Amino acid sequence: MSDKGKKRVVIEDVKPQIEGGRFPIKRTVGEKVMVTADIFADGHDTVFARILFKGPNDKNWRESRLTFIENDLWSGEFRVKELGTYRYTVEGWVDHFRTWQKDVRKKFDAGQDVKVDLQIGLDSIDRAIKKSGADDKRKLKELAIDIKSTDPELAVLTAVGKDLAELMERYTDLSSASRYQKELVVIVDQKKAVFSAWYERFPRSCASEPGKHGTFKDCEALLPEIARMGFDVLYLPPVHPIGRTKRKGKNNSPLCEDGDVGSPWAIGAEEGGHKDVHPDLGTIEDFIHLVKRAGDYGIDIALDIAFQCSPDHPYVREHPEWFRWRPDGTVQFAENPPKKYEDIIPIHFEIDQWQELWEELKSVFLFWIEKGVRIFRVDNPHTKSFGFWEWVIHEIKKDYPETIFLSEAFTRPKVMYRLAKLGFTQSYTYFTWRNTKWEFTEYMRELVKTDVREYLRPNFWTNTPDILPEHLQYGGRPAYMMRLVLAATLSSSYGIYGPVFELSIQDALEGKEEYLNSEKYEIQYWDWDREGNLKDFVARINKIRKDNPALQDTWNVQFHEADNDYLMCYCKTNEDLSNIIIVAVNLDPYHTQGGWVTIPIKELGVDPHQPYLVHDLLSDDKFIWHGEKNYIQLDPTVVPAHIFRVRKKLKREHDFDYFL
Amino acid sequence: MSDKGKKRVVIEDVKPQIEGGRFPIKRTVGEKVMVTADIFADGHDTVFARILFKGPNDKNWRESRLTFIENDLWSGEFRVKELGTYRYTVEGWVDHFRTWQKDVRKKFDAGQDVKVDLQIGLDSIDRAIKKSGADDKRKLKELAIDIKSTDPELAVLTAVGKDLAELMERYTDLSSASRYQKELVVIVDQKKAVFSAWYERFPRSCASEPGKHGTFKDCEALLPEIARMGFDVLYLPPVHPIGRTKRKGKNNSPLCEDGDVGSPWAIGAEEGGHKDVHPDLGTIEDFIHLVKRAGDYGIDIALDIAFQCSPDHPYVREHPEWFRWRPDGTVQFAENPPKKYEDIIPIHFEIDQWQELWEELKSVFLFWIEKGVRIFRVDNPHTKSFGFWEWVIHEIKKDYPETIFLSEAFTRPKVMYRLAKLGFTQSYTYFTWRNTKWEFTEYMRELVKTDVREYLRPNFWTNTPDILPEHLQYGGRPAYMMRLVLAATLSSSYGIYGPVFELSIQDALEGKEEYLNSEKYEIQYWDWDREGNLKDFVARINKIRKDNPALQDTWNVQFHEADNDYLMCYCKTNEDLSNIIIVAVNLDPYHTQGGWVTIPIKELGVDPHQPYLVHDLLSDDKFIWHGEKNYIQLDPTVVPAHIFRVRKKLKREHDFDYFL
Repeated sequence: MSDKGKKRVVIEDVKPQIEGGRFPIKRTVGEKVMVTADIFADGHDTVFARILFKGPNDKNWRESRLTFIENDLWSGEFRVKELGTYRYTVEGWVDHFRTWQKDVRKKFDAGQDVKVDLQIGLDSIDRAIKKSGADDKRKLKELAIDIKSTDPELAVLTAVGKDLAELMERYTDLSSASRYQKELVVIVDQKKAVFSAWYERFPRSCASEPGKHGTFKDCEALLPEIARMGFDVLYLPPVHPIGRTKRKGKNNSPLCEDGDVGSPWAIGAEEGGHKDVHPDLGTIEDFIHLVKRAGDYGIDIALDIAFQCSPDHPYVREHPEWFRWRPDGTVQFAENPPKKYEDIIPIHFEIDQWQELWEELKSVFLFWIEKGVRIFRVDNPHTKSFGFWEWVIHEIKKDYPETIFLSEAFTRPKVMYRLAKLGFTQSYTYFTWRNTKWEFTEYMRELVKTDVREYLRPNFWTNTPDILPEHLQYGGRPAYMMRLVLAATLSSSYGIYGPVFELSIQDALEGKEEYLNSEKYEIQYWDWDREGNLKDFVARINKIRKDNPALQDTWNVQFHEADNDYLMCYCKTNEDLSNIIIVAVNLDPYHTQGGWVTIPIKELGVDPHQPYLVHDLLSDDKFIWHGEKNYIQLDPTVVPAHIFRVRKKLKREHDFDYFL
Repeated sequence: MSDKGKKRVVIEDVKPQIEGGRFPIKRTVGEKVMVTADIFADGHDTVFARILFKGPNDKNWRESRLTFIENDLWSGEFRVKELGTYRYTVEGWVDHFRTWQKDVRKKFDAGQDVKVDLQIGLDSIDRAIKKSGADDKRKLKELAIDIKSTDPELAVLTAVGKDLAELMERYTDLSSASRYQKELVVIVDQKKAVFSAWYERFPRSCASEPGKHGTFKDCEALLPEIARMGFDVLYLPPVHPIGRTKRKGKNNSPLCEDGDVGSPWAIGAEEGGHKDVHPDLGTIEDFIHLVKRAGDYGIDIALDIAFQCSPDHPYVREHPEWFRWRPDGTVQFAENPPKKYEDIIPIHFEIDQWQELWEELKSVFLFWIEKGVRIFRVDNPHTKSFGFWEWVIHEIKKDYPETIFLSEAFTRPKVMYRLAKLGFTQSYTYFTWRNTKWEFTEYMRELVKTDVREYLRPNFWTNTPDILPEHLQYGGRPAYMMRLVLAATLSSSYGIYGPVFELSIQDALEGKEEYLNSEKYEIQYWDWDREGNLKDFVARINKIRKDNPALQDTWNVQFHEADNDYLMCYCKTNEDLSNIIIVAVNLDPYHTQGGWVTIPIKELGVDPHQPYLVHDLLSDDKFIWHGEKNYIQLDPTVVPAHIFRVRKKLKREHDFDYFL
């Protein structure tokens, strides 16, 4: 405290910073954190500043230098290398030695006498010599001899030199250094948090013949094909026992007929609850086996966590205090008046016994983590207490920092953002309902050019069991292809719900964005290999994503001008511009669209005076382009998109092989 | 803590908020604080929220309701009524009773049975009845009888009614209410902090005849005329003894001739330092008398606080540890190499004895406060420690909350902003160097449309002893008039340095923006009543400011389109639009300029189908205008501006008297 009044440097507006440091930012292992801050001192003295950062296993701060940019803004970066929690802050101080160097230089240049000034510097060097080791001591003494030289030119040039500055820096007195008033936090996740391809499928519809209830073993049989399609997350809707009371019939009918299997989200029956598997799917051992087999293919099994109960769930009997009860003695089912969801009972979070409840829900995650699961897709998190999510995600990640939580919240924007801030690793988005070029560019701007980029990782879904969007109902196969390209290239994490996706299923409930004969209420058998299926196309897209680092990032997207509103064009590049991908999409599933696109090739490092090659990774076609403006035409009945890899010209030979 | 888990409401992004609450916002007595926040809960329940605020003498929080706007944004306001420190925060909760009302209404409208639901509400009412006083008890019981009625229409309409909601609100259980994590601070100043007209004058140049050293008594003699001109702050450059060692001669000459009086900013001599007055100006008693006499005219004396010393200042002898010493035994004078200011010695803030130093500097303010001074113009605060300013302003305002500190920092924008954030009441700005329409509109946008509005109160100076801007050197009297109108109508606080201003002095040092024969280094005698002086014009401007509340605010400015780049047009209005001022200025001091201006009269509450009257308060001319577009022409050799008061038509008679 006694040095407080000596601290002259001011540090303001340290970024990234979410809500004044209330929430962490997010990164994956190996990524950079760019830090900026406004840093200045009173008067004209030279200021120096650095980032201090600390990984989960560091006892002491590490340092990374900040560089002055302009208008008192400084910038620097550090890389996060381990899973877990990093902290960072900023430190700045008046650099007396460099200030002295600057002043000596100016006085000397103005022809002023600097004898006394040089003595001031020599005194500082003497103090450093006392603190230094043998090597530095020798170097400093040598430099001091030159500064004492009778040749004023030699004396001053040595005094103001960079060598001396760098040596003296090691002996800076930091007792008057200012530290930013907050330590900010980075949560570091595994790479899949940012780059993942999700495939959703109902296990009970995976049987090898019609009319049978699919099992975990049946799922295992599909793994090779799912892996061939290139997915690395297989997401299963809830696998638990399903309630019988008020069970829904086919197409969400309130009348349940004999043999109806009910909704997997009506969790809990005599056979158990959130820690049990539906007997018709197999045993817990079968499930563990599936997780392991999937792992062999590089596929994570993602479990659905839906914290709600059927009226038959053991919780309702064992913990009546976790639910709302009505004066007539019945338990309150889910409703959003006038809509009723009588097969589902919501958990009541505003209760005195909230700690017991939170611990039990946490134990559900831990139960499945023990079985090998590391990815959870959380159902409707926005209808459960925000405080609970912040707590439980933090608790789980303390011991299992590799865990990924995907927030399935299709709700108001600020609610979605809040869930991301308080810890969800990935988030569902409004992508599913964005259609026009303006909508896409505006939405991507919001996600990647604002603070949102620091805490929300989008996962773009083409369709879900709840949503068969209008454009897929009417646009058919070309629309399915177009949405796949958009989801998979705009966002580095995306998902499809299959096999209705690969089969381009268009049948919806009249006037609704919902599937007819939805798997949510019945078992379906699919001819996955049916003619016209999109499996090979999906596989190609996922391979392109894996081969091209530019597509493994979401925040690097840049939109380019196209003179046709149905034609959307954007590019992605990796850090060193060695991988440049240009995507062009025809947003009209019915007609061929063409137009001129303008690519700022200079920014991409392409010589504007040389031709360059664009290689369509979808069709394998190659085109020689020249300059910024080039013409594109896309027939949706063939392929509604190009995914070009740009190859710059290496030599002046007229030979494609010379394009890099 | 045991209720923590029950708090379901989220409160984010409370505004205004400076650097995550690190700094207070500013208001004056009687002003409003508009508060916004994002507030929401999980699920579909109805949320309610309020501002909590507390004045300097309040033990308990006061409340002000927040209203839902859109997209989870809520808005409300409170008024600050006392000098000193206010605190505010936001509270929100799930309103279970209103949620119940909403659901009952929807179910009833959908034809569902609500018998059990009504019983749930009656149970809540019963609990409220137990807590309520006689009056509410009776009302609640009456309403409960209707809800039990066999007429379902009557029962439901009563249940969902507003009367019941408002009664029940008083018995809301707030144990699960969420409180925003921070308490934010408002510093409440006196009205002059926002609305003030400053007049700067060297007291030593105030003598009644040439060749004499002016005195405090001479200043007193000028008070009636300064009051007639309409100023309410008279700012005096330092009044302390002036050093003799290295004293500067006329025009900043390093050679001091016999009889040269030196710069008042070279503070301290045998006769004393910052707590003494220059003997030639009079005694401390004379100064106190001046302060009192000025008070009779509604004028505050503002003292210049320049924390620096002449080599002869007693501090240099008594506290050598507060200064830097060189190896040759000399004290380090001020320099910004290669420039030297040998008559001035800066105080060194980075010292172990900083606490002693800070206390002494604080005692300087207290000394003058005891003499009746409440306004300080702080010289070059950006060359002294920021931490010191934050501390000293806070310390002084604890006991003297009416004190005003004006920051004289013409430096980098972020440094100026920092000084304002850490406590300065008003700030010098870049106004002095803004010239074009684009520059003015852009600069005003920065000051009034960004966060800066919450903590920086501009004080627009036309000129200072340090700055005779180029436009005044070349534009002469029309330029002086134009700059006065701009300063006095764009900013509610402004200042001029006289009498060089009223006399339109144009003589500058060759190639510099500095006055020739500056009063900084010599005594001048002025013929204040010289023909062409601007005193009456200044008086008129200040009277217009006093008569029109619209001009007593800075943050209400709106710029309007004018189809001539030399013509700038803007308006200001008070809260209820009863006072509307439109200002039009010709920015070209040499030529008459004319053009069409577009005023959004609907927004000003003017009937677009009726003529309206604009009354030029400068010339007293009146014009009948119609619609949004009107023509203006300004001859700078007459008056380079209009200051219109808009009078709307009251009746349909064709008589000016009917304009309000």
